[in-house]
Amino acid sequence: MSSLMGQMMRMPLMISSLLLHAARHAGDTEIVSKRVEGDLHRYTYRDAELRARKVAQALARLGCRPGDRVATLAWNGYRHFEIYYGASGSQLVCHTINPRLFPEQIAWIANDATDQVLCFDATFLPLVEKLAPAMSTVKHFVLMTDRAHMPESSKIANLLCYEDLVEAENGDWAWPEFDENTASSICYTSGTTGHPKGAVYSHRSSVLHAYAAALPDAMGCSSADVILPVVPMFHVNAWGLPYSAPLVGAKLVFPGPHLDGKSLHELFESEGVTFSAGVPTVWLGVINHMKAKELKLSTLRRTVIGGSACPPAMMRTLEDEFDVQVIHAWGMTELSPLGTLSKLKAKHQALPLEAKHRLLEKQGRSIYGIDMCIVGNDGRPLPWDGRASGDLLVRGCWVIDGYFGRDDSPLREVDGRQWFPTGDVATIDADGFMQITDRSKDVIKSGGEWISSIDLENIAMAHPAVMEAAAIACPHPKWDERPLLVVVRRPGKELSREEMLAYFEGRIAKWQIPDDVVFIDEIPHTATGKMLKLKLREQFRDHKLPTV
Amino acid sequence: MSSLMGQMMRMPLMISSLLLHAARHAGDTEIVSKRVEGDLHRYTYRDAELRARKVAQALARLGCRPGDRVATLAWNGYRHFEIYYGASGSQLVCHTINPRLFPEQIAWIANDATDQVLCFDATFLPLVEKLAPAMSTVKHFVLMTDRAHMPESSKIANLLCYEDLVEAENGDWAWPEFDENTASSICYTSGTTGHPKGAVYSHRSSVLHAYAAALPDAMGCSSADVILPVVPMFHVNAWGLPYSAPLVGAKLVFPGPHLDGKSLHELFESEGVTFSAGVPTVWLGVINHMKAKELKLSTLRRTVIGGSACPPAMMRTLEDEFDVQVIHAWGMTELSPLGTLSKLKAKHQALPLEAKHRLLEKQGRSIYGIDMCIVGNDGRPLPWDGRASGDLLVRGCWVIDGYFGRDDSPLREVDGRQWFPTGDVATIDADGFMQITDRSKDVIKSGGEWISSIDLENIAMAHPAVMEAAAIACPHPKWDERPLLVVVRRPGKELSREEMLAYFEGRIAKWQIPDDVVFIDEIPHTATGKMLKLKLREQFRDHKLPTV
Repeated sequence: MSSLMGQMMRMPLMISSLLLHAARHAGDTEIVSKRVEGDLHRYTYRDAELRARKVAQALARLGCRPGDRVATLAWNGYRHFEIYYGASGSQLVCHTINPRLFPEQIAWIANDATDQVLCFDATFLPLVEKLAPAMSTVKHFVLMTDRAHMPESSKIANLLCYEDLVEAENGDWAWPEFDENTASSICYTSGTTGHPKGAVYSHRSSVLHAYAAALPDAMGCSSADVILPVVPMFHVNAWGLPYSAPLVGAKLVFPGPHLDGKSLHELFESEGVTFSAGVPTVWLGVINHMKAKELKLSTLRRTVIGGSACPPAMMRTLEDEFDVQVIHAWGMTELSPLGTLSKLKAKHQALPLEAKHRLLEKQGRSIYGIDMCIVGNDGRPLPWDGRASGDLLVRGCWVIDGYFGRDDSPLREVDGRQWFPTGDVATIDADGFMQITDRSKDVIKSGGEWISSIDLENIAMAHPAVMEAAAIACPHPKWDERPLLVVVRRPGKELSREEMLAYFEGRIAKWQIPDDVVFIDEIPHTATGKMLKLKLREQFRDHKLPTV
Repeated sequence: MSSLMGQMMRMPLMISSLLLHAARHAGDTEIVSKRVEGDLHRYTYRDAELRARKVAQALARLGCRPGDRVATLAWNGYRHFEIYYGASGSQLVCHTINPRLFPEQIAWIANDATDQVLCFDATFLPLVEKLAPAMSTVKHFVLMTDRAHMPESSKIANLLCYEDLVEAENGDWAWPEFDENTASSICYTSGTTGHPKGAVYSHRSSVLHAYAAALPDAMGCSSADVILPVVPMFHVNAWGLPYSAPLVGAKLVFPGPHLDGKSLHELFESEGVTFSAGVPTVWLGVINHMKAKELKLSTLRRTVIGGSACPPAMMRTLEDEFDVQVIHAWGMTELSPLGTLSKLKAKHQALPLEAKHRLLEKQGRSIYGIDMCIVGNDGRPLPWDGRASGDLLVRGCWVIDGYFGRDDSPLREVDGRQWFPTGDVATIDADGFMQITDRSKDVIKSGGEWISSIDLENIAMAHPAVMEAAAIACPHPKWDERPLLVVVRRPGKELSREEMLAYFEGRIAKWQIPDDVVFIDEIPHTATGKMLKLKLREQFRDHKLPTV
């Protein structure tokens, strides 16, 4: 072609360059890890980069070749971080497995990904011993600990010691450059139905996502931050923070397996954490602990909450009582994961507080690199008016165009372009603020109209006696489906069916108020902390609504 | 190769996607322009995107083909912004020419770039009329105004009217996708010696630069900002702000030709500007105006200052008296331009104010995407200790690897990698803060030791009676070179040679104090506002130092 080409240095976007940048420009900035062994481990980006190089050498010595998958079953910690870079940086693929999945799913996933190496924390030794015979492709099992903490014997033949492997190497090895579209890591979706499916991220997509995630309108990461990712590294790469933190040279704090309110609060305070990120359930634990012990947060000033919708009541509590800015976010495994975050525009700065809250409670606006649209049942785009709700579709540099090992494309064509259907139902307002109204499979279809289960849950959760609530569709002879509210009461609090129903009056249209309320001890959750509504629907399939 | 490839959507990084994102997600956010015609023009990103499409259509109708160069001689304004996107987005190359260059240089540059179209503001009609015959490759001259403001006649045959061209198109045209390494724009360096040389940016380099420039540790741009780029769009793409602003959906305010203190202050206040960027000279004008009229800044809270070193006294004034955070930055035409910016790390937050100031007065730290090193006379890397000073080299995704139409590579090899030599002399400290100590050609070599002309100038500029100061090398029979200080006094202020020299005592080592001081009315500047020391050195070549 006759087009003029740019005359700029051609450097592929490599994941290794993130860590190398941190080692060179924030070399003495700390990475602090609460270890499975129980103690706190501290070292620097300079140390991490050297050890990640040794991990790359060790994996090569184990026989790994470009494209081989190195799996992990591990908490957030420095060794996991080293494997992220050591594997991806040496053209292997880091496959983070969610240890909270059913054991059979874990084995299935390892086989589906044809993992060659499995690195795991000591926590998971019993699990791995049980699963090892079923993991047919794994040649090497590596326990992520030092010689002193290795078991005397194990059912796993030739169980390797991570520190032995690292210490055997000299680090005299340079990060290679290769095609930036090469796979860097794999994360499987925790599907509630069917087999999990693998999203295969590339170096390019991960680096672009890391840039975008650090923007002021996204997570706003800087070298002045101390970042504690509560979101696990096996959950969509901890929302990209292990990449964005070295990109900006921020101090990292890894909480290990201790994600209870007390442990997290102690770590926030002792390490001067300024920014964190996690699912609502985790913040519930932190808030409950702080309220019970009358504690405050002295350095934490903002947190991203996503994974599932953050109840507005939780946002108010964190902001009003603990001075923590909540950044509501939405994403998916298939989106690396960030899609939208809720930050106000200049035009919104003068709005009354209540109007600001309503905007910030939405899932937010697309960051550059992601585009989105909503379509109706006919597949045609719907208006951005904050009222029309339809299937949410996305496209962008860090959105999948297929699943690992599967030929069928998940994409849909709209207006001549390919889009990924998210499975969420959403509205988008004129300012681009997207609000999830439901999962397409959770929406309650009452007499041809849709009732958002999330709207009902948010109202219920704002009641002081409610710990958790799920709104599910219950079969109804006349209306097809009607909402049933399933509630877990706060310990020591009283709440009757009638009080709960009365609470909805004036807060939502009358016809959307649930037909009934049932109280249970616990709502089942998926491995990633989302409510398992499928299970609830099965459990209450034969529930007789009083309106029938 | 056997490597596993990622399964992410492959979308080239296109400059058009920045504007398209703003039009879709910040559609009603304003772009406000002070026009050459004298009035204020307001429209939105949605309007700009539509009109940029019409510009693309119009350029195609004029016969432009992929790779053709479309030159501009224009101030910061919405029409210039439309050409940025309309040209680059349709696979043409936007060539911004600095109108402050000597007329012969402008014609030389247009010919060197083989520009096909020249778009220019009415300000430059007399200039273009004079130069047109010498611009042998330009087929179309477009005056960037509407029919009502077109001259009745012009020496330029077939002078085209920008608004006529735009209005003739229907906008029914879609932004094409093509190789992201395609050239997007060209900017020539304003060399003080020899012919100017063209840096050829690509779509990829421009988009990556736009991401990095918006990061919290860089310019920190967000949708809550109102951004006024004082730095001209003909000066390295206004430091990338016409790309970063739509990336985040920030309101843009273009000052047109009016860059005096009064005009800028009025625009800051009337449009609620929160963030600006420009060279020190411009801020001198704004500060002088505000002090004279006892004015404040009610919304402007931070500004990037670069282009040449910001005198510490100016930083103190802006911060202490006007509550504006100064972000000291360093870059070059060859770097798109951002290389480093000065922001504190977490570890610096508790430092005493004076120590913070010393860090923030440095040119700052590399943003991810740029790496740097300093090398000694032997070409070997020097330590990062804040003391060793050497030639500053850089490499990265938005650094040139050659100049337009030239075969010779400007790059140098260090440690097996290719680096671009900046021509600056610098130190880097252990935290990665780089400080320019001089241009390699401006350093004063006294008895084998180097004296930084910039250090001397900063001290002089802190004196209340000094408006501007330049330290230059003056030949000396014993020491080879000794510093001569050239000073412009502040209007109405008294200052003697002896008072000036006494001011240096205790502020710098005795042997570095200038041997003499001369007072002049004005220091000559380059087209981009840098002091023309070459000219000063010529002027004072025969100056007799009292120490000789």
